[in-house]
Amino acid sequence: MANNLLAGKKGIIFGALNEDSIAWKVAEKAHEQGAEFILTNAPVAMRMGSMGDLAEKTNSEMVSADATSIEDIENLIKVATDKFGKLDFILHSIGMSVNVRKGIHYTHSNHDYYMKAMDVSAISFHKVMKVAMEKDAMNEWGSILALSYIAAQRVFPDYNDMADAKSLLESIARNFGYHFGAQKKVRVNTISQSPTPTTAGSGVKGFDSFSRYADDNSPLGNATSESCADYCITLFSDFTRYVTMQNLFHDGGFSYTGLSHEVMDKYAK
Amino acid sequence: MANNLLAGKKGIIFGALNEDSIAWKVAEKAHEQGAEFILTNAPVAMRMGSMGDLAEKTNSEMVSADATSIEDIENLIKVATDKFGKLDFILHSIGMSVNVRKGIHYTHSNHDYYMKAMDVSAISFHKVMKVAMEKDAMNEWGSILALSYIAAQRVFPDYNDMADAKSLLESIARNFGYHFGAQKKVRVNTISQSPTPTTAGSGVKGFDSFSRYADDNSPLGNATSESCADYCITLFSDFTRYVTMQNLFHDGGFSYTGLSHEVMDKYAK
Amino acid sequence: MANNLLAGKKGIIFGALNEDSIAWKVAEKAHEQGAEFILTNAPVAMRMGSMGDLAEKTNSEMVSADATSIEDIENLIKVATDKFGKLDFILHSIGMSVNVRKGIHYTHSNHDYYMKAMDVSAISFHKVMKVAMEKDAMNEWGSILALSYIAAQRVFPDYNDMADAKSLLESIARNFGYHFGAQKKVRVNTISQSPTPTTAGSGVKGFDSFSRYADDNSPLGNATSESCADYCITLFSDFTRYVTMQNLFHDGGFSYTGLSHEVMDKYAK
Amino acid sequence: MANNLLAGKKGIIFGALNEDSIAWKVAEKAHEQGAEFILTNAPVAMRMGSMGDLAEKTNSEMVSADATSIEDIENLIKVATDKFGKLDFILHSIGMSVNVRKGIHYTHSNHDYYMKAMDVSAISFHKVMKVAMEKDAMNEWGSILALSYIAAQRVFPDYNDMADAKSLLESIARNFGYHFGAQKKVRVNTISQSPTPTTAGSGVKGFDSFSRYADDNSPLGNATSESCADYCITLFSDFTRYVTMQNLFHDGGFSYTGLSHEVMDKYAK
Repeated sequence: MANNLLAGKKGIIFGALNEDSIAWKVAEKAHEQGAEFILTNAPVAMRMGSMGDLAEKTNSEMVSADATSIEDIENLIKVATDKFGKLDFILHSIGMSVNVRKGIHYTHSNHDYYMKAMDVSAISFHKVMKVAMEKDAMNEWGSILALSYIAAQRVFPDYNDMADAKSLLESIARNFGYHFGAQKKVRVNTISQSPTPTTAGSGVKGFDSFSRYADDNSPLGNATSESCADYCITLFSDFTRYVTMQNLFHDGGFSYTGLSHEVMDKYAK
Repeated sequence: MANNLLAGKKGIIFGALNEDSIAWKVAEKAHEQGAEFILTNAPVAMRMGSMGDLAEKTNSEMVSADATSIEDIENLIKVATDKFGKLDFILHSIGMSVNVRKGIHYTHSNHDYYMKAMDVSAISFHKVMKVAMEKDAMNEWGSILALSYIAAQRVFPDYNDMADAKSLLESIARNFGYHFGAQKKVRVNTISQSPTPTTAGSGVKGFDSFSRYADDNSPLGNATSESCADYCITLFSDFTRYVTMQNLFHDGGFSYTGLSHEVMDKYAK
Repeated sequence: MANNLLAGKKGIIFGALNEDSIAWKVAEKAHEQGAEFILTNAPVAMRMGSMGDLAEKTNSEMVSADATSIEDIENLIKVATDKFGKLDFILHSIGMSVNVRKGIHYTHSNHDYYMKAMDVSAISFHKVMKVAMEKDAMNEWGSILALSYIAAQRVFPDYNDMADAKSLLESIARNFGYHFGAQKKVRVNTISQSPTPTTAGSGVKGFDSFSRYADDNSPLGNATSESCADYCITLFSDFTRYVTMQNLFHDGGFSYTGLSHEVMDKYAK
Repeated sequence: MANNLLAGKKGIIFGALNEDSIAWKVAEKAHEQGAEFILTNAPVAMRMGSMGDLAEKTNSEMVSADATSIEDIENLIKVATDKFGKLDFILHSIGMSVNVRKGIHYTHSNHDYYMKAMDVSAISFHKVMKVAMEKDAMNEWGSILALSYIAAQRVFPDYNDMADAKSLLESIARNFGYHFGAQKKVRVNTISQSPTPTTAGSGVKGFDSFSRYADDNSPLGNATSESCADYCITLFSDFTRYVTMQNLFHDGGFSYTGLSHEVMDKYAK
């Protein structure tokens, strides 16, 4: 589908680790739709992942940045605006919890790790927008997106402290979105995506059976990362200029399904 | 913007009374994006309005139908599927309250009028989907939309019994959306739009000053009917296949703004 | 627990069919806490049920009333205010769907039955409040409650058109609550209760296995009808004067639990 | 009102700085209803405030504790359980933002201050519950409450980073509430209270005119701190055992009122 939805648009995409990343699919589709962008990730993620292939494929520059570091973000924004002028879109697809990685139960969370999860997974979004606003880096009617998860609304116990991080992330989108809208006509939203077998997603305990459950409880099935990227494209395009300060579910109907017949049948057996 | 987003798609558009109607703008944009469709409205609305001009402009057939009549809907669906085969989209943009028209206060509602408001503004959506499902009239990955309003979530006293109608409409979208998704992979959503100076909208008491308030309380300002049509296009396109059973705010940030500085300044004077 | 929470308070309780009814438990507890009240139900329900025993036990008068009939409600309110003077509380615990009873699938709903479900289960609440307001029957800081269910927010397919009725009921509580609060300082809320083995609840298809699921997905287990009655008592008492226009979940945590470990374990087997 | 609602119950109350504090009112009312408790606050708050008077009046012990310090909380819980055995209730009424105090705009937040606001105002709640759970300090059917604010749902720009703190706080209540319910039958909720002229509340920029706005936009008017304390009593009592994982609005109807006639009239002038 080459509909030129992002013709002439410039942006920054955070978090394309490898082909499984949602950010990777967004980069491919954004390129297909006519956008140019900088790819960025944390230094360690850039070494681990295969972002170089994506950069080549999409003819993009790569900039290493720790999204919790104001200095790194300032450098990133400078590189991007030096190259492109003002920007039209930013994708924030970043999440990390040491408590999850180490299998520490939510009620026993180590609070240094907990703070780190908030900083990397949520407050980094505030930092990126703070710098983008201070440097006046966004065009009017620009669009900023972050990826969230329904654990921000309801409890999925194995999602652990990432649930709190996503609640915080959505709050930041809402609050910063107010100011970015009022001052610069820039919109800010989060997308709450189906469980997706990315490197981060798969790290959550019991991912596979949970993913099957989500699929069974979604009338349309789990949304794939490709379809999530399609949805991101519409939200970066000029067709959605008045959508802001929202958390938008992209999940095949999971969020508003209490209990599907499919889940009930397996549960009741 | 001719991005061919709806190339080859067929549909039905309810409620294009005149140039001020959101449905009118959707028809224009859908045509621009490559769709073909039937225009339909209640017999009296077809006489009062200027839908003929729109039909000509978009090269569309017109079918008169009372959306509360199963027979009329069956005829409409038959005409549409005879012409197009299965359908890809339906827009339901219908609302009417006699209590509002007659200026009867919500707490004094006449209950016959109240029932009529529910039937015309909400239950008609159930009827349309019932017939579309029974006649197997929708293609897989089709998209069905209705227009709602934030009075479904919070009280705006002059919106009167239309608030209840919109709550009911959103419930119908959610519940029918579950079944239409599970059985036919069809998605169903509502869009909750800014106050819009349509013939129906303007009929609500105090529309003008309320519209100014909404504009002041929306960081991006009130969404226009043109931009609402743009948003509808994305929701009919293949870029949003996994968005379903939702009410999607299209309101410049109004719904998540508690109180803007602009409103506060005027209020406090 | 005789804490005199309702000492001196007068009210009306709708819907105490038999000992399994939530309204029955509310009547018992309200009596225990010092309240006096009228018991009312539809004529047919009064014949079928055993409300006479409850009336005797709680020293209450019984008045037959069809809650969809303005005349019947006017008579009821007259009897109650003639006896008590102004009222302090009303409980609306009424729900009925012919589509559910006849096992008609939601997507095939008969629309006459559908309208009837809306009228009996939701619009009757508007009618009761309309009459109570017109007759100035409520004391300041009075409290009006109706019983709802989480199908108003998320889809539980077997709940059928009662889901739409509950959405409408909650909307009516919100909208009427605004006016009743502003004009008379009366609060209006709904309680969204766990699946409860009442005569009405048990009529929903697959009630037993669904009830087990709800119990497993509620960290505290399903709330009993006794505990629901306790909660109603607090909401009729003077300890909750500023709680209004809300839907209050009383469900052991079900509504905010995405997926418990217990459900997951049974699902995954 | 001495209804013995908390007869025999033991607890801990955080945050009673002075007579304006909500926690102060809760302590008075809990005492009146038969409860015994420890009063606690940060060392600096204990020096600044007048908690000694309250301790005397309610015959309570005072323990100084920094709620961000696990050591301090462990000591507090030890003192409390040594004195009382297991506990029945905890009130968390703590909030502080340096960005607010220094008048730093949300979009310019200092991120060290931001982290501090999260730690003091939200994560401290996790820490308290972590220790309470690890030390098995709560009785079955115990009740834990924190105070929140509607800025967790919608944007009130001057509330600044406290909005994010309250979103995080509510997420913690929900997530910890799941585990505390499943493991120990303890319920956890937040109350979202009207703007209240406490020492903390008044510190928010433009508090007075905002408070008037909230009063005008609440059908019942702003809820006072006394009435909030009443509501807390019901949530600590045995009448609300199945209410958990929720944010409960106690605000005279503010949260579900879009725009009242009173606000509209002043706005439109």
